Amino acid sequence: MLKKPLTIPPTIQWQDHCLSFIDQTRLPHELIMVKQENIKQVWHAIHDLQVRGAPAIGVAAAYGLCVGLREKQTLKPTQFLEEARQQAAYLNSSRPTAVNLSWALTRMLACAHNSQAQHSTALYAELVNEAEKIHQEDQQLCLAIGQHGLKLIKKDMRILTHCNAGALATSGIGTATAPMYTAHQQGIAFKVFADETRPLLQGARLTAWELQQAGIDITLITDNMAAHMMSEKKIDMVIVGTDRVAANGDVANKIGTLGVAILAQYFNIPFYVACPSSTIDLSCPTGKNIPIEERQTTEVSHFSSMQTAPQNISIRNPAFDVTPHHLVSGLITEKGIIEAPYNHHLKNMFKS
Amino acid sequence: MLKKPLTIPPTIQWQDHCLSFIDQTRLPHELIMVKQENIKQVWHAIHDLQVRGAPAIGVAAAYGLCVGLREKQTLKPTQFLEEARQQAAYLNSSRPTAVNLSWALTRMLACAHNSQAQHSTALYAELVNEAEKIHQEDQQLCLAIGQHGLKLIKKDMRILTHCNAGALATSGIGTATAPMYTAHQQGIAFKVFADETRPLLQGARLTAWELQQAGIDITLITDNMAAHMMSEKKIDMVIVGTDRVAANGDVANKIGTLGVAILAQYFNIPFYVACPSSTIDLSCPTGKNIPIEERQTTEVSHFSSMQTAPQNISIRNPAFDVTPHHLVSGLITEKGIIEAPYNHHLKNMFKS
Repeated sequence: MLKKPLTIPPTIQWQDHCLSFIDQTRLPHELIMVKQENIKQVWHAIHDLQVRGAPAIGVAAAYGLCVGLREKQTLKPTQFLEEARQQAAYLNSSRPTAVNLSWALTRMLACAHNSQAQHSTALYAELVNEAEKIHQEDQQLCLAIGQHGLKLIKKDMRILTHCNAGALATSGIGTATAPMYTAHQQGIAFKVFADETRPLLQGARLTAWELQQAGIDITLITDNMAAHMMSEKKIDMVIVGTDRVAANGDVANKIGTLGVAILAQYFNIPFYVACPSSTIDLSCPTGKNIPIEERQTTEVSHFSSMQTAPQNISIRNPAFDVTPHHLVSGLITEKGIIEAPYNHHLKNMFKS
Repeated sequence: MLKKPLTIPPTIQWQDHCLSFIDQTRLPHELIMVKQENIKQVWHAIHDLQVRGAPAIGVAAAYGLCVGLREKQTLKPTQFLEEARQQAAYLNSSRPTAVNLSWALTRMLACAHNSQAQHSTALYAELVNEAEKIHQEDQQLCLAIGQHGLKLIKKDMRILTHCNAGALATSGIGTATAPMYTAHQQGIAFKVFADETRPLLQGARLTAWELQQAGIDITLITDNMAAHMMSEKKIDMVIVGTDRVAANGDVANKIGTLGVAILAQYFNIPFYVACPSSTIDLSCPTGKNIPIEERQTTEVSHFSSMQTAPQNISIRNPAFDVTPHHLVSGLITEKGIIEAPYNHHLKNMFKS
């Protein structure tokens, strides 16, 4: 079958030892690639959500470490390694919930430690190579998730997604969006509803934008419209991404995901979570062990620079919630669709 | 017991034949009373949500009709009556979902038709009198709802509310907020969480503001945080308002209410709906018969004047949803708390 060409944004670029990210805080109004001059800038880009989405954060952090070590090649290897450890710890402190951040940095450090290189220049080259591998693997993982998820998308289906687990959240065709892009490439007609995803509107600003760019039929709704759409039988399936999956299959994802999962169960709508296996954290027994980032209250009291809430009002702003595994119809991974019992199937997945 | 004085906003004022509303679109930043010079202005004030909330719309429309007829007192009574009919039909077209609008206008027209007055001046005076009655009754209804709802509020409870069914939605102490204001007056300590209520942020702009003014412990969350708060056992009860209750107990209310009700059921949290009996429409068999207003898409694509969504994106913007009666723990009315079976109990309520 002839495949349509895909238009997806270049979320992360590494060229001639220079790292650039699309500044996602400026979408959908401006598509700007920002060059990352030093590791502090990378830390802030991750912390301030210029680059976001669990898989993209992993790739960004791997390259970010290379940016930090680029000027350290004159150090002795032992000093270079110590520098790498410190910089990795620093980058790892930029956001707490997505496991891909520490996963990628741990892998980079392991690469450095296992290296036989005699000079820091060679060590640096190996780290760049490892980051490029992580980058390429991420793109491949997205494609494989797309292939496995493709079978879920039937003609004329209406799919709801929450937040952005799209191309902008990865360095490839996304996780939750991977089955959508793949189905679109194959000419399957379907419709997507995007929750706007308060407070930072990743659904409105990012998902709606990137699916629109790709020519996919996309409709934007506010988060609180999902129940109404489901009650009117306008949603056939939910696909979301995740920042960390616990060993028992509990899923941490953008705040609001738990609500969508409960609604989906109420209306008997399948609820799928798409992720590469690097997002699955077997060291984390259940969702209760996943740290939930609480972000600054101005994200809720303001829209961009405009204040909408009263002065001095108490505000909660947890950035994520945990969906218990029994609400998850399946995890769409690069190795196939994993279903319950998750404890058992996730363990097996890592054995194979 | 000594009651604390209450600070509630003067949503609607009628003085010396002049009608003024707080312009609620300018809250919480500016508290401005806007004088209503003519019926077109009243129509736009209702349509554009300067005055909103089912009970307040009823009172506003009753007085609005008086504003429209104020300059018509020189007409012959038959012409005056015809003018009243036309103006009532015009005002009734300002918003479709809240039944209080047509309820108040029907009552005003009935008053005019049943009048024995020989002159339009006397007719006008009777209509003003009727509007003042509707106004005073609304205030009394709120107090009675508060008294009946009071028994639901226990010390240290955490109550979630959605949208604004507060003093700003009525001419008294609100509907959903009536039990809260009453409990607060009696010195009971409790906590309220307000959903911000996209797209127009009535929770953030109005509920958070008015409860803060009254000194009630209020925390603002985004709509999609309700599930997380419930999962963390931070919500003990939900109280919302309604724009129309069908004969079977189905409840139309601000978009997002259905989602909150489903979440409440999932987490075994009582879900109450507060309303005066004028909001109960026995002529409407079920929620399916309630017209749902679809509002302009810019409410979703923009925050105030700031665009956040991509250009030319498809958007849905239903302003209300319908919560099926089986998710409703009870209707807190001026006549007491009505529980299932609603079909039976609501019919009985109107007989008594």
